[in-house]
Amino acid sequence: MALGARPDGVRRHNRSALLRRLHTLGPGSRTELAAELGLNRSTIKALVDGLTEAGLVTERAVAPDGTAGRPSLLVSPRPESLCVLAVDVAVERITVAVVGFGGRILVGRHRRAQRGDTEPGAVVDLVAAVAGALSLGGLRPAEAAVSVPGIVRGADGLVHEAPNLRWSEVPIGARLGAALGLPVAVGNDADLGALAEHRRGVARGVGDVVYLSADVGVGGGVITGGLPLRGSTGHVGEVGHMVLRPGGRLCYCGCRGCWETEVGEQALARALGLPSDASRRRLVTELRAIAEGEDTDRRLGEYANWLGVGVVNLVNLLAPELVVLGGLLAELPPDLVTNVESRARDRSLVGRAAARSVRIRPAQLGGQASLLGAAELAFERVIAAG
Amino acid sequence: MALGARPDGVRRHNRSALLRRLHTLGPGSRTELAAELGLNRSTIKALVDGLTEAGLVTERAVAPDGTAGRPSLLVSPRPESLCVLAVDVAVERITVAVVGFGGRILVGRHRRAQRGDTEPGAVVDLVAAVAGALSLGGLRPAEAAVSVPGIVRGADGLVHEAPNLRWSEVPIGARLGAALGLPVAVGNDADLGALAEHRRGVARGVGDVVYLSADVGVGGGVITGGLPLRGSTGHVGEVGHMVLRPGGRLCYCGCRGCWETEVGEQALARALGLPSDASRRRLVTELRAIAEGEDTDRRLGEYANWLGVGVVNLVNLLAPELVVLGGLLAELPPDLVTNVESRARDRSLVGRAAARSVRIRPAQLGGQASLLGAAELAFERVIAAG
Repeated sequence: MALGARPDGVRRHNRSALLRRLHTLGPGSRTELAAELGLNRSTIKALVDGLTEAGLVTERAVAPDGTAGRPSLLVSPRPESLCVLAVDVAVERITVAVVGFGGRILVGRHRRAQRGDTEPGAVVDLVAAVAGALSLGGLRPAEAAVSVPGIVRGADGLVHEAPNLRWSEVPIGARLGAALGLPVAVGNDADLGALAEHRRGVARGVGDVVYLSADVGVGGGVITGGLPLRGSTGHVGEVGHMVLRPGGRLCYCGCRGCWETEVGEQALARALGLPSDASRRRLVTELRAIAEGEDTDRRLGEYANWLGVGVVNLVNLLAPELVVLGGLLAELPPDLVTNVESRARDRSLVGRAAARSVRIRPAQLGGQASLLGAAELAFERVIAAG
Repeated sequence: MALGARPDGVRRHNRSALLRRLHTLGPGSRTELAAELGLNRSTIKALVDGLTEAGLVTERAVAPDGTAGRPSLLVSPRPESLCVLAVDVAVERITVAVVGFGGRILVGRHRRAQRGDTEPGAVVDLVAAVAGALSLGGLRPAEAAVSVPGIVRGADGLVHEAPNLRWSEVPIGARLGAALGLPVAVGNDADLGALAEHRRGVARGVGDVVYLSADVGVGGGVITGGLPLRGSTGHVGEVGHMVLRPGGRLCYCGCRGCWETEVGEQALARALGLPSDASRRRLVTELRAIAEGEDTDRRLGEYANWLGVGVVNLVNLLAPELVVLGGLLAELPPDLVTNVESRARDRSLVGRAAARSVRIRPAQLGGQASLLGAAELAFERVIAAG
């Protein structure tokens, strides 16, 4: 209803608002729902009755909380009644899940990726096969969405470039859509990680968030004013390619001194004195040993310095209340994170000026952030359609 | 209407949408307005009749464009019927203007700032005096807004820090509001410059824009998906304090190597071989001579390099379609701008990957951008109130 609105659009608008509320925050009494949405009792009753009839929610009486009066009816989403297919294509593994109304994973499969498994054709075949197997269980997703570690055009799901998958100009949205017979949205993995942490993780209820994730590359997703920052095309958040050290190491993107070359997985391996192809598991083990040995400053002082420079820049540019560290960054020793947090507060003009202090916290959803974010992306369309 | 909507809100919503359309794009026929807002003829007629009755618009018949049928009625905003007070507090001068419905300046005054003139109390007195004088002319602004070169909390108009005015924690919104007896919004000068260039300047109709302005400091404003990027608090866009050259020059903010130290007014004077306190006029004269002498590369090669590094970072982070150069940056030689534009396209991952190419253009509204942006900020509230 950005421009003109008609009375006949109001009911659909309110139905979507109610679905969104139930999906994001879970069950609520009719009284709570009416208050939160700013609607009167009879409007809520009509809407809930419609959803019950469609099988989307159940209602049961709950005892009033010690106050007098009739028990209120608790409205709960029925997870299986409305579901989406979520896919996470990562360098090391491909995950396919069906996520139900309310945001819970109903069923999921993942496969460790061998050479060739992440080629676009192989991904399409795998996802179609898994989706077929899952639908035998009676689940019928209404929409699908895919997370890809690359630069994505949101409008049609074209992946311009996903260097670590070696994808270039791959219309994965259209190809998967044809194979599945479903509308397929595509998002960048860090953008979707940000969305998931905002809806269901450590950033729940926080209006301005920067989510950073280091795996093979370094990606970022931004929530501003409670909404994902996407621009008109969805090409935002290539924080890993912020040049911070002109004349520094050569990045695959062609520039020197990109942030990724100082804080990505290889840079972390270098800082830890491990070979640049050390496994994720080995990096994590080493990081935990450092945290226990209280040896962080000596071992990771310079790494922390470069992490701090980039975080200060992002705080100055985007003024987040919270910076969420995802992927490998979630494993950094707590004292290193505290150190970067102090720096973000003291060294950024915005951090100092704002009355509130920026916080830095590890992500809560771990390896499932991008997958759950893809599910949220798909649900956005389901819910908007009412 | 973010959450629940009621039928009684629809009329007000539509009235606001129509006011916004007329304010931003100017006159339109009833037929055009109906089509653009997605409303039917009778709804538009009722809305326009309401606005005519309130004295906000005039209608006159225009000849049909060669087609058969009745002449359509052209609906035009009446500038004096609805106006706002806009104030631009800059280091060198203070400007006060009344801007009418439709965005045109009806009357304005400016004063070159002497020492002391930009102290908060002096600004309040000056603005109140000018506003009083203007209202004798019969203009009665409905709201006011102020542009300040500093970090502003949007919610209540507190200026946390405006270093070049030497303001710290100044509640200018509340103080001016009390003096004027009007609601006063406050915005950052670059944010408001971005808003004005987007609504009425070179960025009109462009969805994703980064506006950069160098004067004493370097500021930035961002439009994303057609809307200003403000975050929950309004503290965004301190692009001048992106650290790009760790270990570089000391910035007043306490960091070394902020972008501002390489591309701000003083850096430009340095690059041109002028004293660091050279006047704005002298800098501009020198820049024009360079442009004519085709001597840009030799004289400003390194300056262009640092401008380019920052622009590449912003393109990677925010994926603008258009970067607008305001303030002193609007005076840079065209071949320097072309050079930075090529670099933004070739060196940024996003610039290369996106099918569209980022463009870099000088601002169109010149020294009035922030003032006009303040007017737009004030109008947003007038229009939302319907």
